[in-house]
Amino acid sequence: MARSPVEIIHRKRDGVALSPEEIALLVDGFTRGDIPEYQMSAFCMAVFFRGMTTEETRALTEAMLRSGEELDLSDVPGPKVDKHSTGGVGDKVSLALAPLAAALGLKVPMISGRGLGHTGGTLDKLEAIPGFKVDLPVERVRALLREVGACLVGQSARLVPADRKLYALRDVTATVESIPLITASIMSKKLSEGIDGLVLDVKVGEGAFMKSMADARALASSLVSIGRAMGKKVTALLTAMDEPLGLAVGNALEVVEAIELLRGGGPGDLRALTVELGAEMLVLGGLSRDLESARGAVVSAIADGRGLRKLEEIVRAQGGDPMAIRDPGRLPRAARSYLVPAPARGIVAAIDGEAVGLAAVALGAGRTRVEDRIDPAVGIEVQKKVGEEVERGEPLCRVHEGAGSESREAITARLTRAFRLSDRAPGKTPLVLERIS
Amino acid sequence: MARSPVEIIHRKRDGVALSPEEIALLVDGFTRGDIPEYQMSAFCMAVFFRGMTTEETRALTEAMLRSGEELDLSDVPGPKVDKHSTGGVGDKVSLALAPLAAALGLKVPMISGRGLGHTGGTLDKLEAIPGFKVDLPVERVRALLREVGACLVGQSARLVPADRKLYALRDVTATVESIPLITASIMSKKLSEGIDGLVLDVKVGEGAFMKSMADARALASSLVSIGRAMGKKVTALLTAMDEPLGLAVGNALEVVEAIELLRGGGPGDLRALTVELGAEMLVLGGLSRDLESARGAVVSAIADGRGLRKLEEIVRAQGGDPMAIRDPGRLPRAARSYLVPAPARGIVAAIDGEAVGLAAVALGAGRTRVEDRIDPAVGIEVQKKVGEEVERGEPLCRVHEGAGSESREAITARLTRAFRLSDRAPGKTPLVLERIS
Repeated sequence: MARSPVEIIHRKRDGVALSPEEIALLVDGFTRGDIPEYQMSAFCMAVFFRGMTTEETRALTEAMLRSGEELDLSDVPGPKVDKHSTGGVGDKVSLALAPLAAALGLKVPMISGRGLGHTGGTLDKLEAIPGFKVDLPVERVRALLREVGACLVGQSARLVPADRKLYALRDVTATVESIPLITASIMSKKLSEGIDGLVLDVKVGEGAFMKSMADARALASSLVSIGRAMGKKVTALLTAMDEPLGLAVGNALEVVEAIELLRGGGPGDLRALTVELGAEMLVLGGLSRDLESARGAVVSAIADGRGLRKLEEIVRAQGGDPMAIRDPGRLPRAARSYLVPAPARGIVAAIDGEAVGLAAVALGAGRTRVEDRIDPAVGIEVQKKVGEEVERGEPLCRVHEGAGSESREAITARLTRAFRLSDRAPGKTPLVLERIS
Repeated sequence: MARSPVEIIHRKRDGVALSPEEIALLVDGFTRGDIPEYQMSAFCMAVFFRGMTTEETRALTEAMLRSGEELDLSDVPGPKVDKHSTGGVGDKVSLALAPLAAALGLKVPMISGRGLGHTGGTLDKLEAIPGFKVDLPVERVRALLREVGACLVGQSARLVPADRKLYALRDVTATVESIPLITASIMSKKLSEGIDGLVLDVKVGEGAFMKSMADARALASSLVSIGRAMGKKVTALLTAMDEPLGLAVGNALEVVEAIELLRGGGPGDLRALTVELGAEMLVLGGLSRDLESARGAVVSAIADGRGLRKLEEIVRAQGGDPMAIRDPGRLPRAARSYLVPAPARGIVAAIDGEAVGLAAVALGAGRTRVEDRIDPAVGIEVQKKVGEEVERGEPLCRVHEGAGSESREAITARLTRAFRLSDRAPGKTPLVLERIS
């Protein structure tokens, strides 16, 4: 029996497993615009509370994938491998990783998203580069993969339009942190790219969607199993997020930090994670025989500047100003900044990434409504990472503010609360907590 | 600290009790149109799962009440008492009760709603009467109360605009059945009427929002405690809804049945409930000293036709065709009807009111989207009530269909499932299950 959208929401709300037809009815209707946003957001909130079975998640992934075209890369030679992160705070890995992987011979058709909840989005970061275009026609994407080896683009209206709409809606309705919704969003988008392999970076910790190892493992397993079922090579790393990755949080600030990394500098945690994910990509793509040699290859591509030159190439090819990569002073900069002082002496035990991410959103670096505009220049630079000592009054971070930023008092309160100070040095957490392949 | 709407939804989703300021921010923003429907529907679904504390419910009620004006009835002489039902299937009591109460000396400023979920709305029923206007200016409402003694109107944009918007949104997002949302909706609307007393009819059973006695008791207590806190006399009756009330489900069909009641006929359950609620209103208003004599007064007002004449008066005063009350053949009628036969021999053990209500919606008697139009003529006439015997093939009900109705096969399947047949006669359920005062 055909059911109306409100009946389907009602059933999910009451814990009934939906049929593939019911799920397709919602996804297709929403994509066409026949089912309004207010019904879809209520449905997403019901899914948040009730979850989905594997069958429902697969049906959701397939309905979303079917909502648009798939990228046909059969005429692009070379192994096509992508990386996806579940979204961290300060996670600018993609900006360095895509050029490194392409410099080493992989084809990287990286379709990225916008800021979601308290985490930033690769597209928003890229658009901090003057002129950079993330919306390219499919033919241009294919040409870039053949000629440059990588492209960093948004979802076109033709690839997975359902996810494009749903992603924006979940962001502003507090329905992001749901394993089936995350799985369907990631896998429909990635499966539409025409890739052979996919490396997943599933973040765990306060700054991540997945706060616990159990949740992160559940998400990683959900992603790997649905990817495998669709015939792809998939590896997932569970990585720690007890503090923002690197030091910079905010769009232009993060571009600058990614450039520093490709110049051989940058924060140690950012560099280590980039090398690890790059190594997994090389192994999945068959270009390295083991992780050890793959790591060496990535390190070399940083050391000899091949990664940096490839980033310049990508920026030029996508309409951006390549001079901004040589001279990051050409990137947008906030007119005013201020420091947030430590309220007491201590050792930084943890930095709540979610609080830092929400502070960045409140500065204007992210969205609270679909139609909000982002200020690329605003953001936060962490001055003290976990394990570092700080004196009372010494700066914990620097805040770059803009015209639309929340008051200094409110931002300072948010950030002061984000830093947990302790008497004792915290235990060391390894970067990669678990590997699921 | 001021929080954004998405942060507030997030907190409610995670089970945090919201402050009055946070609740007011959502209600005020939504009423003004600054907070979009997709955020409010996600919030309502989060409230469905997480509930609200008494303090939150009171803050929600007050924010909604404050969203508009309150009706000032200080210059209308006589006790002002209203009745509210939590919404049953086939519940056309208001159409007969308001005229009866007014005929007996009460002032009844009855502000009603539209169809919500699977239950009908008094306004939709009234609009089946040609010309009947439910949107009247406040001055006209006051004049009608002085001259006629009752008026049956919708919420004006000035009275509780927040509830008007929220009610429509909940209806189409499966967020109706939530005790705090129902409480705030009912009490904000009723408190805005300027009444002295209120009788609540809280339905319990398959056809009601509250399926269990425990839930119904919780809702009744919530309503009574918030009403009392605002200085009103409030009595709640918990009444059984194991089948639709009366025989008719559908707008014009229900008007006809209410007229039959005022003519001294009509189904027994409908009549008994109308008398009981009318008696409670007379006692609350101080016009009868006890329920026994109050029941007698209501029965007399039916027997001598005072109720029917008062309904004609109300219809005329609100722009409707009073001849339609004398000759219900003037009401809209469906061009086609068909019977739903019993699939087997048996005794009717229960009639799932929710299924019947959803079948009526699928016929076009209710809405699945805010902007849907209602067909006043379509609906269902039950032929066999609980406790009656039926032979295989004998009709369970008659369906009146229209141009926009779902297929006969689908409607027949819905209604066949709605009737539970048994070998044995079901136990008798009393009409009034509990009285909370």
